[in-house]
Formats: sequence, structure tokens, C-alpha cells
Amino acid sequence: MSDESAVRDAAGRARAASIDLAVRSRAEKDAALRAMADALLAAAPEVLAANEVDVARARQVGTSEAIIDRLRLDPARLEGMAAGLRDVAQLPDPVGEVVRGSTLPNGLELRQIRVPFGVVGMIYEGRPNVTADAAGLALKSGNAALLRGSSSAKASNTAIVAALRSGIAAAGLPVDAVQLVPGDSHDAVKHLMRARGLVDVLIPRGGASLIRSVVTESTVPVIETGVGNCHVYVDASANLDDAERILVNAKAQRPSVCNAAETVLVHADAAASFVPRAVAALRAAGVTVHGDAEFVRLGGVEVLPATARDWDTEYLSLDIAAAVVPSLEAAINHIREHGSGHTEAIVTGSQAAARRFVAAVDAAAVIVNASTRFTDGGEFGFGAEIGISTQKLHARGPMGLPELTSTKYVVTGDGQIRT
Amino acid sequence: MSDESAVRDAAGRARAASIDLAVRSRAEKDAALRAMADALLAAAPEVLAANEVDVARARQVGTSEAIIDRLRLDPARLEGMAAGLRDVAQLPDPVGEVVRGSTLPNGLELRQIRVPFGVVGMIYEGRPNVTADAAGLALKSGNAALLRGSSSAKASNTAIVAALRSGIAAAGLPVDAVQLVPGDSHDAVKHLMRARGLVDVLIPRGGASLIRSVVTESTVPVIETGVGNCHVYVDASANLDDAERILVNAKAQRPSVCNAAETVLVHADAAASFVPRAVAALRAAGVTVHGDAEFVRLGGVEVLPATARDWDTEYLSLDIAAAVVPSLEAAINHIREHGSGHTEAIVTGSQAAARRFVAAVDAAAVIVNASTRFTDGGEFGFGAEIGISTQKLHARGPMGLPELTSTKYVVTGDGQIRT
Repeated sequence: MSDESAVRDAAGRARAASIDLAVRSRAEKDAALRAMADALLAAAPEVLAANEVDVARARQVGTSEAIIDRLRLDPARLEGMAAGLRDVAQLPDPVGEVVRGSTLPNGLELRQIRVPFGVVGMIYEGRPNVTADAAGLALKSGNAALLRGSSSAKASNTAIVAALRSGIAAAGLPVDAVQLVPGDSHDAVKHLMRARGLVDVLIPRGGASLIRSVVTESTVPVIETGVGNCHVYVDASANLDDAERILVNAKAQRPSVCNAAETVLVHADAAASFVPRAVAALRAAGVTVHGDAEFVRLGGVEVLPATARDWDTEYLSLDIAAAVVPSLEAAINHIREHGSGHTEAIVTGSQAAARRFVAAVDAAAVIVNASTRFTDGGEFGFGAEIGISTQKLHARGPMGLPELTSTKYVVTGDGQIRT
Repeated sequence: MSDESAVRDAAGRARAASIDLAVRSRAEKDAALRAMADALLAAAPEVLAANEVDVARARQVGTSEAIIDRLRLDPARLEGMAAGLRDVAQLPDPVGEVVRGSTLPNGLELRQIRVPFGVVGMIYEGRPNVTADAAGLALKSGNAALLRGSSSAKASNTAIVAALRSGIAAAGLPVDAVQLVPGDSHDAVKHLMRARGLVDVLIPRGGASLIRSVVTESTVPVIETGVGNCHVYVDASANLDDAERILVNAKAQRPSVCNAAETVLVHADAAASFVPRAVAALRAAGVTVHGDAEFVRLGGVEVLPATARDWDTEYLSLDIAAAVVPSLEAAINHIREHGSGHTEAIVTGSQAAARRFVAAVDAAAVIVNASTRFTDGGEFGFGAEIGISTQKLHARGPMGLPELTSTKYVVTGDGQIRT
């Protein structure tokens, strides 16, 4: 079978499974999630052996130890994946929720209710635990999942999906609700992106170039996730103790994730007091500062001179770009020009400045006097997260289970016609 | 200036206008809508003269009188357009609405609020009144509009947009909030579809081929609208008086629109009694029936034999495809195979049949015991409608003002950091 027909065949089976899944009760889906967790733990020897194959191959091709650590599974990480599936079983079922409803003047009863999308395609990099997370969230929201992980995790993902499918089968739900996209080539991903009518939505999770290629090539609707060029703006009126703690936390608490800060902007009136202590605190946290001329002047020799590229760079490392801005409006304009629409924070004592920043900055999350690191489904209380949308259509910000659904209007009458 | 740079220039000006517009109050936007209505009526001589040019050109190229009637403006239709703008001013402003909110355990205050998309592109066919409608709905929801109407209405649309812009200017809002897409060629539309980053969403309104080409070619996110291959299913237990009235209304009350019925499916147990009277009633309403073999057998010589194509045809005319099905499940499967996900109706006396149909049929609107013609923003009480989405992402069914917005999370703290 060619890659194209293999992908379309898988998508067709996913669609058939999704039709069955869409009308299953919460109790049936939760039982399947628990069975998936059990099956994953029962298959621990096979999954860990497959993962050793992936790790050995990665090491052969000279992959860095940091990346290999993301790839590696151990019994504790498998337990974590199983626990994640059981946690999803505890969450409310979004399907069937009445979003709005009314009785129309002619007596028609109108209800808008949540329904599954149908078939959700996920394209992701790195960690194999995403495979179990994505499968669990899709199943809970009544969707069939077509999963395409990194080729470096292929053996692990194959073993994980086999285990999840045996759990689904044990619970009496359609096994094709969870599948890996067949085929090794990049063409297989292309065929997935062209399977309009079979796949309802594609969610890429990964770096900027992956997202860009999916957005450009896909005819299936896409939800963009995860690229975060996030800023912390320290206003003239900021409490500088708060500003320092927030800045260091936003940058250094976990630099490899999308809600970490990549640039700090400091109002000129606060710069003389704040820049030296900010540089010292960032340096103490192991951060390299790339500053504009004024930041270098105030921050001293430890600040490297920034180039134009720094303002647009999502470092995902212990680096930060830094500039002094003449005003709140200049900070807003800088963010408008360079931000990726993920998370933008202001530290300020001024109610007017906070209000203006919140209104003028166009991003999934705008944060006043707290760390950018809070943009997260778990922190927001959503219980689980499939990714963080940086687009404006359908979902923006952390996506939980409701964001994996569409809606349907149900209109009930007793013979009404239109006149 | 090349088409491409002209389109990108217009989109850039739209973006600048959208930044201004996003923070305007409801009072300012409503004043602008009323000024747009006034300016449109004040420009009636220019608009009607421009429309005569379009009508004359259409007649020259042999356009049908039905199409010319859609194109033609007169003082009453202009009054209707102005009244539409004033009606939009009366509607609540979706911008700033708090969709959800909570206080997190760490004291952070979380609010999800509605914000404008930014720049909305509309590509549409036919009637020039869409130009004023779309401009008004976009402005009310805080969006700049880039409008691309039919080339057959170009003179009319140019005059209408000039009038609307003079109204916007008089009200002190940015005139580039409403623009026509510059350029005559199809390339101009292509450049609009490729203006990712400048245009936030494209909404095509028109026939199936327009929608398909936008969906395939656009890198800007698209909301599909308007293709309706809608079914009326008459169940075994249907009240046949209701079924007849609903069927005739769904097909014939306004056959040219997307929520008109295109196929009737009749349960075999009701066929002997229902098919003859349905054929008589449809014929009396001027409808040509294209039936399957059983429908022809029961309906008599006035029923034309259907071909495979009829099941997938959106006639938009006084034609209907008709089949006898052995069961409710067969009706559901027929709709799954041939429906366009717009509106599907069941006429039934059985609660179980209604419940199964509602759960299993995947469409923007599922209607029990009423006409398909009710899928409409006005009928649903939304006050205005930018189109009817047949996709599952972002908006599904009639789209009012809230569907022209995105959301933003606003998080307010007093120094919280993540640990």
C-alpha cells in the first residue's frame, strides 16, 4: 500500500471509530481510560525495551544527552503516564454540555451543545509521554486520534499505542480511536495534512518550523500551538523587588518551555535602579543577558550587545534579550512587533498602566504583576492541557477538553414552518 | 504598485486601523455605525448611479434577470442597508465580555475576555448589500474589514465603501477599518489568501467552488460558510400533516438559500401513505421531484428518476431529490454520506427516533419537527448574521457578533511566581 493510501485508510478507520465514540457515555469513556492506564503498565517490559531501542539509536546518531533525557522512559515515567490517563478520567466530560439555550418566540427550543470534532490529528516532537496524554484527552472528548510523533521515538510510540489499543479493546470501545499515522516518510505527514474531510483538525506541537510547515501546507484546519516569544515589561512604577523575582522566575524557572520569558523591557525611569540588580539576579541564575546599548551601559560588561535577531529569538535556553524603552507605549509597540502572541507580562504599580497594557497587548495571555510561567492549563485549573494555542481562531491560550470539541445546534419543535 | 504590494499595503493599513479600533468604546462604535448609515443615504445618488453601471454591464454580458435582480439597488434597498447598520448599533458589544473567570488558589485573578480578531477578510458573491452588512458587523465587533465582492458589483461596492468610509471619518474612527481589496485580477484574491500575519481570518460567502478554492489556497485561517445539502427525513412515526407542511416549507419557501432542503428521505413504513401526497404537494408548489426507484413507483409518472449525482447536488432551485429508506439508521447513513454538515431535519412522533437522530447526525444544526429554514442568525435570535459556518472549528452554524471575536486571558496578581 502506498503511503497515501495507508494514511487515508487509517484516517477512514479513525472516522468510523469516531462515529461510534461520539455517542458513548462518559462512564464508558472513563472505563476505557482506566483500562488504557492498566494496559500501559502491564506492557511496561515491552514499552521500556522499545524505548531502549530508540535511546540507543539516538545515542548512535550523536543526539545530545538533554534530548536523550526527554526521550528516555523509566518505570516512574510510565507510572506518570498511567496516572495522567486516570486523571483525565476524573475530569468532567465536555461532550453534551449545553453552551447556550433558549425558547424562540415561535416555540422552537434552541440548544447549542458540545460535540466531538471527530478525528483529531496530532503532530509532535520529542517526549513519548505526549502519545498517552494526547490519546487520553482525545478519547475523553469523544475524538479519534491520529498520532504522529517524532521518528526518534518511533519504537516507543509504537509500543505505547499498542498497549493503549489493547486497553481500549478490553473496555469494548473501537480500537481505531487511537492510531499512529502509518509510514516513515515526511510524505506520510503531508498526506495527513491533505486528508480534508477525513481529519477534522490538526494540532501540531513543537518548534516554530514544524508549526509553520503545517500551517502552510495543510488543507485540514490547524490549531497552532506553542511558539512563545514572551516579554516581561518593567514599568516606571514597578515594585522592583516584585519585578526582579518575576523576571528571574519567568526566565529561569524552566527555560525550555514556551511560557518562559525571552525578552525583558525596562522603562527608562526605572532603568538606572533596576538594570544593575536585574543583571546581577539573572547572572546569579545562570542567565546570559543580550542587551541594547542602554542596557549594556547600565548593566556593565557582563551584558552582551544584542543584535536585531535577538528581539525575535525564542531562545528556550538561559539567555534573555533586554532593552530600555522610553515609555509604556514603546514597550507595547516593541511587543506588537516582536511578540508571538503567547504571553506578555507587565510589572507595575500603576492601575492606568496595567489597564492600558492589558487593553493594547494582543496575546493569548496578558499578565499583570506575576510570572509568564502561569500560562498553563494546569495552573489555570483546566486539569489537563493538549497544548497552548497562539492563534485567534477557535481556541486561544491553554487548551483543555472543551477546546477539543465543536458544537451543534439542536432545534426542537412541533411542526413549525417559516413564513 | 503590483497587485501583491497593493493588497499587502491595504492589509497593513487595515491592521493599523484594527489596533485603534480594538480599544474603542461601544458608544464610539455605535456612533460610527449610525454615521455610516447617514453617509450611505446621503450618497444615494452616487451609489445608485454606480449600480446602474453594474446593471448595464451585467445586461450587456447576458446575465440572467434573476441575477440582475440580486445586483440591482433602489432607494428602498439602500434604506434597508442603512437600517441594517442602525440595527447593528442596537446589538450588545461582544468585545470585553467575560467568558469565564475565577480566582486561582495562589490568588491570581483569571478572566477570559472577548477581543476582536483584528483584520477580517470577506470574499463574497452577488448582492452589494453584503458590503454594508459585513462592514457594519466587523466594525461593531472591533475588527477592520477587507472586503472583496463580486466583480459584477464593483462600481456599486466602490461607491458604497466610499460612503461608509466618509461616515467612519465623520465619527472620528480610522477610515481604513473598511476597505475594498484593491486590484481587479484573481491574483488580488490570492494575495489576500496569503497575507498570513496581516489578515486574521477569511470568511468566504458564496458557492461551493468559491469556498473550496479559498479553503485549499489560503494560508490565512478560514471559516467556511454556506454550502447546504440539507435533508428532511420523514420517520415511520411522523405526523404526515406536519411532514408535508415542513417538507414544502423547507424546499419551496425560498429555494435559493443554503438552509433550503435538497433531499427528502422517507421511511419505508410511511412511504405508501406519504409519497403520493408529498409528490402532489411538492408539485403544487412548483417543485420537480427526482426520486429513487421506490419513490418513482409510489409517486407516479411525475417523479423523474434520480441519478447518483442528485444525492450530492445543492440545487438551490425548485428541485428535490427523494428516496425511500428502510430504516432510521439508513437515513442517518445517507445523510452522513451526502450531507454537507449544514442542517438536517427529522419529522417523527418517536422520542427514541428523535434522540438517536440528534445524537448521530453530525451537522451545524439538527432539527426535530420543524423546517430546515430556521437555521438563521435572525431566527435564532442573534440579531445579525455574518454567515452560516459549516465547519467545526471556532464557529458552527449561524455566526453573530460573538463569532467575530477571539478571546484573551487576563491574569492579575501581586507578585506571584511559579514554584
